[in-house]
Amino acid sequence: MPEFLTLLPPDEARALLLSHLPDPMPFDQTQGKPDSESIDVISSLSRVLAEDILASHPLPDFQRTTVDGYAVRARDTFGASESLPAYLTLVGEVPMGDAPAFGIGEGQCALIHTGGMLPNGADAVVMLEYTQQTSEVSKDPGGLPREIEIFRAVAVGENVIHIGEDVAQGGLVLHKGTRIRPAEIGGLMALGITSVRVVRQVKVALISTGDEVINPGLKPRPGQVRDINSYTLSALVEKSGGVAKRYGIVGDQFPALKEAAAQALSDCDVVLITAGSSASTRDMTAEVIRSLGEPGVLVHGINTRPGKPTILGVCNGKAVIGLPGNPVSALVNGYLFVVPVIEKLLGALPKPEANVLARLTVNLPSQAGREDWWPVKLIVNRQSSIINYEADPIFGKSNLIFTLANADGLLRIPSDTTGLSAGEIVEVLLI
Amino acid sequence: MPEFLTLLPPDEARALLLSHLPDPMPFDQTQGKPDSESIDVISSLSRVLAEDILASHPLPDFQRTTVDGYAVRARDTFGASESLPAYLTLVGEVPMGDAPAFGIGEGQCALIHTGGMLPNGADAVVMLEYTQQTSEVSKDPGGLPREIEIFRAVAVGENVIHIGEDVAQGGLVLHKGTRIRPAEIGGLMALGITSVRVVRQVKVALISTGDEVINPGLKPRPGQVRDINSYTLSALVEKSGGVAKRYGIVGDQFPALKEAAAQALSDCDVVLITAGSSASTRDMTAEVIRSLGEPGVLVHGINTRPGKPTILGVCNGKAVIGLPGNPVSALVNGYLFVVPVIEKLLGALPKPEANVLARLTVNLPSQAGREDWWPVKLIVNRQSSIINYEADPIFGKSNLIFTLANADGLLRIPSDTTGLSAGEIVEVLLI
Repeated sequence: MPEFLTLLPPDEARALLLSHLPDPMPFDQTQGKPDSESIDVISSLSRVLAEDILASHPLPDFQRTTVDGYAVRARDTFGASESLPAYLTLVGEVPMGDAPAFGIGEGQCALIHTGGMLPNGADAVVMLEYTQQTSEVSKDPGGLPREIEIFRAVAVGENVIHIGEDVAQGGLVLHKGTRIRPAEIGGLMALGITSVRVVRQVKVALISTGDEVINPGLKPRPGQVRDINSYTLSALVEKSGGVAKRYGIVGDQFPALKEAAAQALSDCDVVLITAGSSASTRDMTAEVIRSLGEPGVLVHGINTRPGKPTILGVCNGKAVIGLPGNPVSALVNGYLFVVPVIEKLLGALPKPEANVLARLTVNLPSQAGREDWWPVKLIVNRQSSIINYEADPIFGKSNLIFTLANADGLLRIPSDTTGLSAGEIVEVLLI
Repeated sequence: MPEFLTLLPPDEARALLLSHLPDPMPFDQTQGKPDSESIDVISSLSRVLAEDILASHPLPDFQRTTVDGYAVRARDTFGASESLPAYLTLVGEVPMGDAPAFGIGEGQCALIHTGGMLPNGADAVVMLEYTQQTSEVSKDPGGLPREIEIFRAVAVGENVIHIGEDVAQGGLVLHKGTRIRPAEIGGLMALGITSVRVVRQVKVALISTGDEVINPGLKPRPGQVRDINSYTLSALVEKSGGVAKRYGIVGDQFPALKEAAAQALSDCDVVLITAGSSASTRDMTAEVIRSLGEPGVLVHGINTRPGKPTILGVCNGKAVIGLPGNPVSALVNGYLFVVPVIEKLLGALPKPEANVLARLTVNLPSQAGREDWWPVKLIVNRQSSIINYEADPIFGKSNLIFTLANADGLLRIPSDTTGLSAGEIVEVLLI
């Protein structure tokens, strides 16, 4: 098999590919195309920030209370206790959403609700629990008791958030490269930012090859199979922050594949070619990548299963990846190689991997020197306090796409082992 | 604080709420509204299947080879070895994507590529590695050598996938309730299924209350704060398979809130009301829920931090949830209570939780009997083989939304502990 003379370990192969890609986008800058766009924050979920976000004003921008209680001058409460309360004169109630029209003088206090603005003169808030309305005193015409007993002293600033205590004016609150989650949307709204610059979505071209491959809407004749890879990989691209563009199915002819790939390379940021099943088709993909631009093929053959025939290339600064025709291999290697490419091009900051730790149910053999990825089912394991799942490998002869559809994730068997033992704790990549 | 007389533990509160909801949708069936819709599989990522998917035909529907090699009658190879090869006459090459026009008779073989269809008469495939073209024999006019040496015997069925071996005709391949991932899209395409019935997205109404709350596009006057909760919760709903409908900001008046909530309840499947900060506003939410339908308020006050003032209700079969006005509390309790409601209504099958195990960096105190959720930053920890992260709690006085924006996840401190110690392994919910 001349195509697999040198097999690179997957981590090394991935690093080599990524090192040849611009860091991060824009590679369209030379063509004057924008690498970012301004969108409404409401529609920005899962997009990547193209700019640092600074606070244009402090948060909060007025002194507010964190509790329900009475706004006071702290020194008026010093020494107050259950047995020796301080008595303060109630001068009003702070309205929600407005600045109080009154201030607090010596021996005075005001009723205030969580989030309310401190009146001038007040420098602390006593929690409602440590106060009592004096029953002896008649109420004023506004319905508020005129005198309040304070059973606990408060320090200056107690139960108060100061101006800029959360966010100082000009402070960097969100970094460029942040993937926008619900919390980031909230942070932007808190600053009154309703539109934001995000990195343009990465455009990924998908080409399926193979004389035996047909459109999934058609009924296959004997010997034909439906195109699966264009659609699984489209979905993966979409899930990872890309936009997929499908270029259809190309037969096993070099000129046709080269033409389709050249067009895709000119339209998109990344090109994925899934090979037909035969060795000749796989070789053709490598030839096409070599013909499209420099440096061409970087890696031909990876020491992993599934995925040995994967080809990693870069043509004129854009990634061109040849994936195996087998749908399981194509999708697994999509997770391993395509997703990192998209994340690098987006300039997305690294985020924690949502890998699940699980206890392996059976022994799994593996060939030393090769990294294996097994589809596994995760079964809830209530016995253990920390490891909540058991990982049950799915065995199948032909790597049908339904083995992945029935799997919760992929179990990695590192290349420096000859297998894993039942009972071992393993890491499962959710798919 | 009369509003918090009885505080339920969060798990119990959630179970009580879910037990009052229909299992699963459709609750609109009585009104004749469809609870599912047919959509293109291409657009079905993250939707939930509303029907079991059966295989209308077997997969594969022809006998195919899993390797490159020669299709043979296995019995013609019996006894073959390096020292005593079998010699077979080559009768042709199986074309990709077509049924071979020839059959295999006694002593014959055919060149075949991975995925190719076995010719009639063939019952096994010998891998290319265990064969050799005999150099002595001249090639036929078609360019194929006429005789092939076979160095290894194959059993009947070896390197062959039989009809229906992957999926039998009529087999259940995807269960109703499955959340569609890239692999499921591939499985559907493999069967030629290009449109599919999915559960209608859950419509979630969002109402913000509080006289101090203003539209985030406006500039707050002293005492005012921008509406954050409508937007963080919209994003969370969207992320979880719902459609958010915002009903804007309602002031602290019972009739206005009741009217808005009644309209929302009639339009949507779930209603979320985020309270203003004051105790009176929180109480008003409970009164409104009581007025909207039976059984009304199920839980008023939950033994958790943040989130104590959360109110869980059901009115005429629909969940109505009152969340605290504090943006961090609202969003954290959205993860804890709103997401499970959406998943129940979708009828989504349980899936593994993408929780990250991490080592806690500091001691964290907690009040026994109360469940705490701390925002934490996850720091990559390369030292450990299994626990890849350290969890570093984010401390902040006022629970600003930026504490969540800076957090990778939420660390749960169970109610049966008085805290966690530095170095403990903890579970972090990614947000």
